[in-house]
Amino acid sequence: MKTVRLGLLGGGTVGTGVARIIETHQEEIAQRLGANLQLTGALVSDLSKPRDPVLSALPLTTNGDELVVRGDVDIVVEVMGGTTDARLLVERALRTGKPVVTANKALLATHGEPLFQLAAETGLDLAFEASVGGGIPVIRSIREALASDRLTQITGILNGTSNYVLTQMTRGSSQIAEVIADAQRLGYAEADPSMDVDGIDAAQKLSILALLGFGLRVPFDSVPTTGLSSLEAVDFELAAQFGGTLKPLAIAVRNSEGLYCEVTPAWVPESSLLSHVNDAFNAVYMEGEALGPSLLYGRGAGSLPTAVSVVSDVIEVARNLLRGSDSPAPSFSFGSGHCTRAADAEMEQFVRLQVADEPGVLASVATALGQRGISVHQVIQFPVEWSEGAILGLTTHPCSRAGLLEALKELENPNGAVKKALALPALRSNA
Amino acid sequence: MKTVRLGLLGGGTVGTGVARIIETHQEEIAQRLGANLQLTGALVSDLSKPRDPVLSALPLTTNGDELVVRGDVDIVVEVMGGTTDARLLVERALRTGKPVVTANKALLATHGEPLFQLAAETGLDLAFEASVGGGIPVIRSIREALASDRLTQITGILNGTSNYVLTQMTRGSSQIAEVIADAQRLGYAEADPSMDVDGIDAAQKLSILALLGFGLRVPFDSVPTTGLSSLEAVDFELAAQFGGTLKPLAIAVRNSEGLYCEVTPAWVPESSLLSHVNDAFNAVYMEGEALGPSLLYGRGAGSLPTAVSVVSDVIEVARNLLRGSDSPAPSFSFGSGHCTRAADAEMEQFVRLQVADEPGVLASVATALGQRGISVHQVIQFPVEWSEGAILGLTTHPCSRAGLLEALKELENPNGAVKKALALPALRSNA
Repeated sequence: MKTVRLGLLGGGTVGTGVARIIETHQEEIAQRLGANLQLTGALVSDLSKPRDPVLSALPLTTNGDELVVRGDVDIVVEVMGGTTDARLLVERALRTGKPVVTANKALLATHGEPLFQLAAETGLDLAFEASVGGGIPVIRSIREALASDRLTQITGILNGTSNYVLTQMTRGSSQIAEVIADAQRLGYAEADPSMDVDGIDAAQKLSILALLGFGLRVPFDSVPTTGLSSLEAVDFELAAQFGGTLKPLAIAVRNSEGLYCEVTPAWVPESSLLSHVNDAFNAVYMEGEALGPSLLYGRGAGSLPTAVSVVSDVIEVARNLLRGSDSPAPSFSFGSGHCTRAADAEMEQFVRLQVADEPGVLASVATALGQRGISVHQVIQFPVEWSEGAILGLTTHPCSRAGLLEALKELENPNGAVKKALALPALRSNA
Repeated sequence: MKTVRLGLLGGGTVGTGVARIIETHQEEIAQRLGANLQLTGALVSDLSKPRDPVLSALPLTTNGDELVVRGDVDIVVEVMGGTTDARLLVERALRTGKPVVTANKALLATHGEPLFQLAAETGLDLAFEASVGGGIPVIRSIREALASDRLTQITGILNGTSNYVLTQMTRGSSQIAEVIADAQRLGYAEADPSMDVDGIDAAQKLSILALLGFGLRVPFDSVPTTGLSSLEAVDFELAAQFGGTLKPLAIAVRNSEGLYCEVTPAWVPESSLLSHVNDAFNAVYMEGEALGPSLLYGRGAGSLPTAVSVVSDVIEVARNLLRGSDSPAPSFSFGSGHCTRAADAEMEQFVRLQVADEPGVLASVATALGQRGISVHQVIQFPVEWSEGAILGLTTHPCSRAGLLEALKELENPNGAVKKALALPALRSNA
């Protein structure tokens, strides 16, 4: 039986998971692939660091440049993270004629377009299932659906830490800062939690999905992002009173202008499956013209779930290698897309206002919204203990997201009737 | 650009959807495949029947034997249904060296094993994504996960009609027979609804998933099946009082004995995503040792969603064809499995008893269960208007499914204290 040899870049949790799965599932993999998989070397940053035996048994090196061009490496598996060295090594691998499997969402969100182009030029696979949604087969499902369908929406809970934090708030925690600190203690959040709670991680993943699903380059730092720290306990109360909950969403919706992208907490009705995706789980909701609605749910991170996706990619890429290089089209290609970027979207919205408890406030808010053609759907107002004012919550019928944000900016004034305002997208019940 | 030519067996709703997608997505398919797809003929049962222009424009024939061996057919697409003719034509295609894509669950549930064996012997693809879960990529996801993981459970809502019926009952309909009649009027149910509401359709799909996911041959008519007509309105009330709902499930769970399979309505807690899968939607929940829990959700039937899956398969099979036939292992192979069949499973259960409203009844039930080591978790009893007795509902801690059914059989006696008894599996909250 033939052997396909892998060079592993990165000896962290995902790298360890990959080595473990390749060891423990040798037999199943051989059966499915018709060949053996063998790790012939691994790039690590520090040779002396203690590590899991599945890794320390491999020939370790700190020289990635050499590893990716070695004769006994057929496929390069990049799970090292970062964007600078990873980019150089992936490019070097492709230029040397070696297909690459990567789990590195930051790399693809930053340099995806030139890397995919290089892969297309060299006719080599650049597989990236594990870069979004950990163990959930998001990339594969979008790729498969796309060949025979036209997507109209991808909306996902793509950051597990953010979902954990909002789930805890929904269950009654009172201070979002405390919950974030807890998540750090539990190892859910990075030491610098801003990648998670400010939506940067989700924006990077959304950037990859926008390129894959709609053929549109959306630089992740151009995605409007609302962090979790803008939320207060009262928002979760209001969300429940309107029959739903707040979830950390990455939204890409096609409208008449093009593709609208945003990363933000959003109100999700109870009737939506997304509202029941809790703790650190991820989910991706998609709508296709032919397929209709669909959803994928599972663990979005973690050593083994992510490694399962990496190994699935390795098997697919290895199969392509074994079948010969005269591939008619790279398996991992995606449409060039005719989609432009939309700066705005019509959507239902969830609004929380901290208002002065005085006559005329509701009227002034209602007038300001009405003048802009924003139609209110539901309203709740209640006094609050912790201020002299009241909380005014409302949901709108579909209206311009940019228009509503602008209207609220005008209304907001620490010395006026509306002291503070927050507007979040509200999903329809079918999502 | 090369052209891959398809022979279509069947001109019904799925066949029409396939023809429509191949026509409207020509450009995307060519981009993704590096070749064109062309339908060169279609088998229909009656040439004179009026049909959609996308089909009537094709060369139609009533001679399937001839179509599958024709020189201008590279891949056979079987969407005709039935098991006798379909089997002969699929075998003939494979023996003539042509890979096959099928959407026919009855065919695979009945003759899957010899057909997959023939495909393996001939080294040809036999793809079947559309046979289970319509547009949901169930088969592909299980196949991918399996290469690097070991599944412990597959539990699905696999029959849309049954889910529609139970959803209506949960929403307050009072007579299950009336809801089934409504479903027929709406076109959800077959004229003969027993395939749907007696669980035969779900058992056929479960048989395919058991073979694929656990390598075990489970003849569909050997799967214990509880039909929907055993349910009454009071069961939905009880289910809600216990904090959940009833869903039509197909269950395959690995335990120490082997694989336990059952098709039955089951109690699902609100905390489970499956409890929120409503109307005619399907979902498949899976657990893998490495992946942990995951779920796929979408439309399980319908012309276009099913056709999307068929065309995805066609593209994969066509790509394999174009890459040459020296395939190291058939893409659609699956593990030989070391799994045996389990006759019983330990599970939490939901029990509804119609009891006489007299002293000692609760004691006799409790004693009978206790003697068999069945531990009660929650109990609700209430009198009912429509009989002289009461309804006693309970849930159990994990206990033998066979043991509980046997205990209830002994208790049940139209003239005794327990007039009627029903026991359904109860899912744990993490499913």
